[in-house]
Amino acid sequence: MITTDILIIGAGPTGLFAVFEAGLLKMKCHLIDALPQPGGQLTELYPKKPIFDIPGYPEVLAGDLVTNLMEQIKQFEPGFTLGETAETIDKKEDGTFIVTTNKGTKHQAKAIAIAGGLGTFLPRKPLIENIESFEEKGVEYFVKDPEQFRDKKILIAGGGDSALDWSIFLADVAASVTLVHRRNEFRGALDSVEKVQELKTQGKINLMTPAEVVGVHGEDYLTAVDIDKEGEVITLEVDNFIPLFGLTPKLGPIADWGLEIEKNAIKVNNALDYQTNIEGIYAIGDVNTYPGKLKLILCGFHEATLMCQSVYNRINPGKRYVLKYTTVSGIDGFDGTRKQAEKAVVKAIQ
Amino acid sequence: MITTDILIIGAGPTGLFAVFEAGLLKMKCHLIDALPQPGGQLTELYPKKPIFDIPGYPEVLAGDLVTNLMEQIKQFEPGFTLGETAETIDKKEDGTFIVTTNKGTKHQAKAIAIAGGLGTFLPRKPLIENIESFEEKGVEYFVKDPEQFRDKKILIAGGGDSALDWSIFLADVAASVTLVHRRNEFRGALDSVEKVQELKTQGKINLMTPAEVVGVHGEDYLTAVDIDKEGEVITLEVDNFIPLFGLTPKLGPIADWGLEIEKNAIKVNNALDYQTNIEGIYAIGDVNTYPGKLKLILCGFHEATLMCQSVYNRINPGKRYVLKYTTVSGIDGFDGTRKQAEKAVVKAIQ
Repeated sequence: MITTDILIIGAGPTGLFAVFEAGLLKMKCHLIDALPQPGGQLTELYPKKPIFDIPGYPEVLAGDLVTNLMEQIKQFEPGFTLGETAETIDKKEDGTFIVTTNKGTKHQAKAIAIAGGLGTFLPRKPLIENIESFEEKGVEYFVKDPEQFRDKKILIAGGGDSALDWSIFLADVAASVTLVHRRNEFRGALDSVEKVQELKTQGKINLMTPAEVVGVHGEDYLTAVDIDKEGEVITLEVDNFIPLFGLTPKLGPIADWGLEIEKNAIKVNNALDYQTNIEGIYAIGDVNTYPGKLKLILCGFHEATLMCQSVYNRINPGKRYVLKYTTVSGIDGFDGTRKQAEKAVVKAIQ
Repeated sequence: MITTDILIIGAGPTGLFAVFEAGLLKMKCHLIDALPQPGGQLTELYPKKPIFDIPGYPEVLAGDLVTNLMEQIKQFEPGFTLGETAETIDKKEDGTFIVTTNKGTKHQAKAIAIAGGLGTFLPRKPLIENIESFEEKGVEYFVKDPEQFRDKKILIAGGGDSALDWSIFLADVAASVTLVHRRNEFRGALDSVEKVQELKTQGKINLMTPAEVVGVHGEDYLTAVDIDKEGEVITLEVDNFIPLFGLTPKLGPIADWGLEIEKNAIKVNNALDYQTNIEGIYAIGDVNTYPGKLKLILCGFHEATLMCQSVYNRINPGKRYVLKYTTVSGIDGFDGTRKQAEKAVVKAIQ
């Protein structure tokens, strides 16, 4: 059982920044995310795209913003349960919550902050008979750990940035990489398209277009796929089939937690602390809704901050909190580090 | 008469960021500030101190944050009335407001956003008889334009960073600089104290400690001051006397505008749009109060954003606004510039 003060569901920018504000109040956080790495859609969908409306950043790449947030929170030592989805929640008599993931990992916390963004990003799955029985047995919808594919025969399907970028990366890792796309044209960053062209010319990527995977074979584990190339079906021996057809956000099991839902978002009390209809469960960032709500990262930062104050009062009843400015008081990390502004010196001039 | 869409009172970080969010909605802004430059207390009080709680910045110097915000808003061409204080407000029949400063400058706007921080920073004045009659006639509480002191005989009083830093800067500009402080010890950045020591040793700063200015003389304009040095009174001919004894924030004339005030802050409707009890007048950032309010810069950013949405609906009745993400839609500046993410290419691989 993982225990923490605030269990944050969703490790996008809002969830990450909540760790910082909680840390200032001496509360520990643990984050659950369905994706294999922190950052939410910023990392998974558009890491190399600039964002122009983060206050104080005329321009920042989405991936760099996540890197900076990870740096900002590291002294508060957040825990992570990645690649798992929060599935069930139970409120105990002592007011704490137990959240269990789809893989059975249990987390106990004094408060829950749902920072789920647009929802859990679920992969778009190809319509291939029997594909479910090979999931995680040769069929992978995410590349969680590239080392898993070392010296394997890999087939990647898709025509966007993910398919291009993973083909490039795995060309150096896998025994062979075949890239299958139903059109001749790829849609992605110019760099990536050109790099795949180069690797194809060098014989490092085996390209099949226009083509489509139409069947999967194997006993316990995947051993081959059928590819329809302009009407002709070829069977290719592979160790792994990685369909990268994009992600669709779904609110997922959280929708059944008894929370008030409106237009696929969780209603919160924005007049106070972004708490939901269930005491002790908060919703912050794009996943919540209230009058005048804007789904902007900067609003999630504010909501995370007020949520932390409310949780502090909830778990420290009667204790008065006095706001301290980081510039004045500095920051004490849970790892023993201390950050502070240089103090003014008092010195005589002779 | 200066006309604009949103008149922002206070050019601190919250007021500056409001220009950006207004710009995304095609609304123009003009800012009034009592200080001679934008940035509020970040620029005036602690430009070289790090802030640790700006989301996405593990650490940022206050002055750099202001520089970045100015860069972020420049394509929306904000106007500035600096060194003046908003004094009176009149609501016209057509729903617009006229705001007049202490120097008589008039501004007409469709909405008012008070982003006044802790209030107007008023200089702490020394208790010297008759000093008021020399204000702006030799006695200056701010250094607005250092060139004004070129080849003049300057006396600076004070023992903190402002007194040290302006003494250093003006040593190269003025005919002579005398620094008077009532103690031998100065309190400031180590760099600044050491630099003043060096300039004193070189004879470029005339240091008098422990000493105090006790009298001012002149006809229309200041010509000399009396200095009490350990009981002995010396008269020194000077062109300018610059007392730098710090600033105290006061809500100022805004307190008489009929706004609901609580604990020296303006009450707003945080459940919707940070509007005050007077329709069309908003209060954002440290100057406002509501249940759970935290006086943090990141909260001001959120409040500024929701305020801009509300103003948009107010001045474009019936027009439906659809939120666009800057990463997707880019930004069109009022100056004709365009910022946008690089588009994905669609390209065949041969």
